[in-house]
Amino acid sequence: MKCHFFNDYSEGAHPRILEALQRCNDSQETGYGEDSFSLQAALILKSKMGTADVDVHFLSAGTQANFIAMAAMLRPYESVIAADSGHIAVHEAGAVESTGHKINTIAVAQGKLTPKDIQGVVDSHTDEHMVKPRVVFISQATEVGTIYAKAELEVISNVCKKNDLYLYVDGARLGSALMSERSDVTISDIAQFADMFYIGGTKNGALLGEAMVIVNPVLKKDFRYFLKQRGALLAKGRVLGVQFVELFIDDLYFDLAKHANAMAKKLSDGIVALGHSFLADSSTNQIFPILPNALIEKMKVDYGFYVWGKIDADHSSIRLVASWATKESAVDEFLTDLRTRS
Amino acid sequence: MKCHFFNDYSEGAHPRILEALQRCNDSQETGYGEDSFSLQAALILKSKMGTADVDVHFLSAGTQANFIAMAAMLRPYESVIAADSGHIAVHEAGAVESTGHKINTIAVAQGKLTPKDIQGVVDSHTDEHMVKPRVVFISQATEVGTIYAKAELEVISNVCKKNDLYLYVDGARLGSALMSERSDVTISDIAQFADMFYIGGTKNGALLGEAMVIVNPVLKKDFRYFLKQRGALLAKGRVLGVQFVELFIDDLYFDLAKHANAMAKKLSDGIVALGHSFLADSSTNQIFPILPNALIEKMKVDYGFYVWGKIDADHSSIRLVASWATKESAVDEFLTDLRTRS
Amino acid sequence: MKCHFFNDYSEGAHPRILEALQRCNDSQETGYGEDSFSLQAALILKSKMGTADVDVHFLSAGTQANFIAMAAMLRPYESVIAADSGHIAVHEAGAVESTGHKINTIAVAQGKLTPKDIQGVVDSHTDEHMVKPRVVFISQATEVGTIYAKAELEVISNVCKKNDLYLYVDGARLGSALMSERSDVTISDIAQFADMFYIGGTKNGALLGEAMVIVNPVLKKDFRYFLKQRGALLAKGRVLGVQFVELFIDDLYFDLAKHANAMAKKLSDGIVALGHSFLADSSTNQIFPILPNALIEKMKVDYGFYVWGKIDADHSSIRLVASWATKESAVDEFLTDLRTRS
Amino acid sequence: MKCHFFNDYSEGAHPRILEALQRCNDSQETGYGEDSFSLQAALILKSKMGTADVDVHFLSAGTQANFIAMAAMLRPYESVIAADSGHIAVHEAGAVESTGHKINTIAVAQGKLTPKDIQGVVDSHTDEHMVKPRVVFISQATEVGTIYAKAELEVISNVCKKNDLYLYVDGARLGSALMSERSDVTISDIAQFADMFYIGGTKNGALLGEAMVIVNPVLKKDFRYFLKQRGALLAKGRVLGVQFVELFIDDLYFDLAKHANAMAKKLSDGIVALGHSFLADSSTNQIFPILPNALIEKMKVDYGFYVWGKIDADHSSIRLVASWATKESAVDEFLTDLRTRS
Repeated sequence: MKCHFFNDYSEGAHPRILEALQRCNDSQETGYGEDSFSLQAALILKSKMGTADVDVHFLSAGTQANFIAMAAMLRPYESVIAADSGHIAVHEAGAVESTGHKINTIAVAQGKLTPKDIQGVVDSHTDEHMVKPRVVFISQATEVGTIYAKAELEVISNVCKKNDLYLYVDGARLGSALMSERSDVTISDIAQFADMFYIGGTKNGALLGEAMVIVNPVLKKDFRYFLKQRGALLAKGRVLGVQFVELFIDDLYFDLAKHANAMAKKLSDGIVALGHSFLADSSTNQIFPILPNALIEKMKVDYGFYVWGKIDADHSSIRLVASWATKESAVDEFLTDLRTRS
Repeated sequence: MKCHFFNDYSEGAHPRILEALQRCNDSQETGYGEDSFSLQAALILKSKMGTADVDVHFLSAGTQANFIAMAAMLRPYESVIAADSGHIAVHEAGAVESTGHKINTIAVAQGKLTPKDIQGVVDSHTDEHMVKPRVVFISQATEVGTIYAKAELEVISNVCKKNDLYLYVDGARLGSALMSERSDVTISDIAQFADMFYIGGTKNGALLGEAMVIVNPVLKKDFRYFLKQRGALLAKGRVLGVQFVELFIDDLYFDLAKHANAMAKKLSDGIVALGHSFLADSSTNQIFPILPNALIEKMKVDYGFYVWGKIDADHSSIRLVASWATKESAVDEFLTDLRTRS
Repeated sequence: MKCHFFNDYSEGAHPRILEALQRCNDSQETGYGEDSFSLQAALILKSKMGTADVDVHFLSAGTQANFIAMAAMLRPYESVIAADSGHIAVHEAGAVESTGHKINTIAVAQGKLTPKDIQGVVDSHTDEHMVKPRVVFISQATEVGTIYAKAELEVISNVCKKNDLYLYVDGARLGSALMSERSDVTISDIAQFADMFYIGGTKNGALLGEAMVIVNPVLKKDFRYFLKQRGALLAKGRVLGVQFVELFIDDLYFDLAKHANAMAKKLSDGIVALGHSFLADSSTNQIFPILPNALIEKMKVDYGFYVWGKIDADHSSIRLVASWATKESAVDEFLTDLRTRS
Repeated sequence: MKCHFFNDYSEGAHPRILEALQRCNDSQETGYGEDSFSLQAALILKSKMGTADVDVHFLSAGTQANFIAMAAMLRPYESVIAADSGHIAVHEAGAVESTGHKINTIAVAQGKLTPKDIQGVVDSHTDEHMVKPRVVFISQATEVGTIYAKAELEVISNVCKKNDLYLYVDGARLGSALMSERSDVTISDIAQFADMFYIGGTKNGALLGEAMVIVNPVLKKDFRYFLKQRGALLAKGRVLGVQFVELFIDDLYFDLAKHANAMAKKLSDGIVALGHSFLADSSTNQIFPILPNALIEKMKVDYGFYVWGKIDADHSSIRLVASWATKESAVDEFLTDLRTRS
């Protein structure tokens, strides 16, 4: 195997993360997220978002972040609206339902919800014989690598406000989305439009860790109870705090995302140049080229990637994921082999 | 502040843990606990337990481990029997209840359940108007530092088998329990008596991590679904695997626990020599001396520890916790100051 | 208002039900479903099904029956497959999700699932990142009045067995389905194909009451715990038992369903004769004619019914429901008015 | 068997209830609790309570009422405080826990909580590592037949208000409590002190039915969603409405309770006259005399009652329950036999 493009969590952490853990190791700290590093990380994140008026909590994993957020935002009979390709709808083993809540799924193109989609669900839920939609769940970037533009987020935010819905943004790959060359969205914008969202660390250089940001004051109260009750308070919460300090004390987080995007872009450009098309219009670190099955078989000999779906008898889409750890030489080698084996 | 005896998770990880994470950092691994390190760690643990016939999974935290285990062992109307001082009964914010299950608590001395306690709960739950007890939850070591002897575990195991109850052992501080100078219990014994238990890493040198061991074949099926659904599958599961390899590849885990116990013993002996008594008969790394309130106040100036409970108008119990990171010099200094200030 | 065709639960109970309640009123009975009437009703039902090898329990309402059945059949990470028009998917306010389970919905025509639909869901759920489908939920009759033929039930039962899925039948309108002139299915067939199902009383002459039949031996154990825990054990369980004795001691239940079907058939034939078409091919007591909006408005002046959905700019479907209490004269009058006002 | 004193739900309904069901049977009504009878019953109850400012909903059973109320009042990490003898704590098969909530139980005498009990639980729950107590659950009458005096309710209400706790009253036997000759509490008082409570019908003459009263405006919103989601909305909600109209249109409800109390009093006085003592100081329709075991055995030959608990080697307590249906001649006969067989 020459190289993996399986995902953005194949390696450990960026070296600076490990150095930071070592540097801070001896400090005696309070447990359960009240350590000095977590407090400092929260302050830094607030500064990056340009607002002190949010709460920040650190969690271990994306599914954990999502189901705790839903549990905290919803009353028992309330539901969450999501794309049918949404992570919570398919790939979290029913985590949201395990907290008692229905997901109202919408079939979407390009992984993105529209205000019309959302309004449609609201309008068709009219009384207590049905659940009551209360949260809109979107991902930035989406499962297929696309991103919402600022104007799109704004109209979604408006339709949410109009219908008394909370807007939640799954930011497992928020770094990549923000650093997309097509993005006109800042982290401050996210903090303006969303009621709650998380900033993903695991898929952008951390060993583990996601930073939950609570914007809407109504949702801030007692959130630590949810963390504790659902197993998300680490005794050594410092492990998360130290990493987020390191990622955001300067622009490491954004630099890593830029690198991942650049590698995905280079892969994408090279594949376009060979005349292939794509499943989705991604501008982030995951791309979904459509290739002849025979070529896919040849490439699988030396490269790791997932076959995503069948397109027709002779073609399939594959997923290639770049990360902070992806080497440009690996990308070059992949493209050369792709051209040679075509 | 000269030194903390607050708890055994004040520092980061043992240096060898950090070195291991660095050493393994570049390896490209499969995600979600199927990495080579987690597989290797499971093999090593099985070897230490002297059985290949168990399943091993790695989780992030003790509360997470406990509530996932209960969700996996219990049908909706079934309950768990625990000491009223048990971690799940008091200090997990209702995590077990959040999965739908009642805890039948029993008032106990020294933190330990007896077969008679257990049989009493079973006998008083007679029909479908009441919950059906199905799991017995014990901690080794207990919340007050005591341990079950092998003979005690055996009779508890027997009463469980007789009544069709699963036996679960919370091993947050299992290392310390096994290394207690009074212990006649091995890790193989635990794997023989328990249906499921976990080996705590966080409180014995790891950054984070608990190893769940499933002994009873009935409980093995589909356990990874529970891990995923409750947010416990880390994308970089390697982070846990690497640490458990390092802790158990030689006897680091046990050496760290021995050190913690030795430091607690030294503290304990010194306090006994000064004529003080104890709340519980601990032989592990947590001790609970009873001191005059005036002395406690004087010690608090320079040392970190929790005041545990009021004994009488003039005395309180305090908790002192030693860990792998506790320095003998700090213990000496504490004892000297205690004597001087008495 | 001349007459309602809103639903089949507009009136109280069939007079024989009230007489039976009066007749049995003074008998002193054991509570919570262990009264002599409930026991007798269970025996009668077993005899009607031609098998003693099932368990029978009486519940108060259909949503209650459905969510308790799902709670009893599913482990926490397991899901239920249903038509997207299924009652549990839309009209139970998230009852199934409130017990922690996802519903995998399938877009269907005529309210009916096919083996291919079911196999498709199973095949796309491959590992622990997704829920594990475990129950297939169908309704007989469906939400749009259609019924499964015996051959259809057989192939569905087969695909369930092949994939280790339980088959559950919501029989809120089972009487009407069995008495459909197109039906080749008996109540014994249902008891052969389904693992669990319920026989609806509320919508066929009872004051309230549904009889849950557990066919699969695996599902019988401890079912009364679920009834108690979810509030379904009535202190005066006799109220349900007495009614089911009366409904099934002779063929009252089937006679009432026949009458309802006959009235719906007469309505349907009359509407066909006027040249209108239908939303679904119902042969039971609910029909869904498509009428010009202007005609609908005129009919609403004197008749009660629900407008079901928009067909085009000028037409909508309406729902007409007949019951044991529907008078033939009311049907005649409706048809006359429909013709006159066209 | 001469007569049962097993419980107050052995017979069917008071004859007037059955007559009312018959009288109203043909009326075509809206389903799911929005029928004219339920609306009328709510108005009558508000008038009896002397306030229009409450919401009234009708449910089928006490356990159903309790767990739905808890689900509606509590956020996921919040708990309910109850006596360890409380119905929700012991005899509801973990219904409250099945909605995700812990019950903080308190060992009490005479089945009654005190402000000190409540404050103690609140004071010992200090942070997010523990649940957050939010509801106080009391029963009027209690499980052992005792009642809270107005002054006792007032101080409990005060301690609740002071600590931001809701007060909930389980009124399964509220009629008997209010009609106790020792009671100084009116139904208006209950509606003043409680945030939510229910008025039990099943155990006081109805076929089935409990009226939930929501006093606190915060708790009124969306309550019907809870009813629907947990299976409590009956299609023929009229069945409950009709009965509550009949029970409260004049004072039938209170007259039935008075009769039950009078019969219990007669039993009690007769037993006292024979020199026996009692387990609890009941003034309602359940009494708990302590009798010699030999005498109990002799009485069991002809009378139905539960042996409640062991007192000493030679004595046990029994439970005798009187109801609206208890005949004075049966009481006389019991007392005569008790005297003769002593």
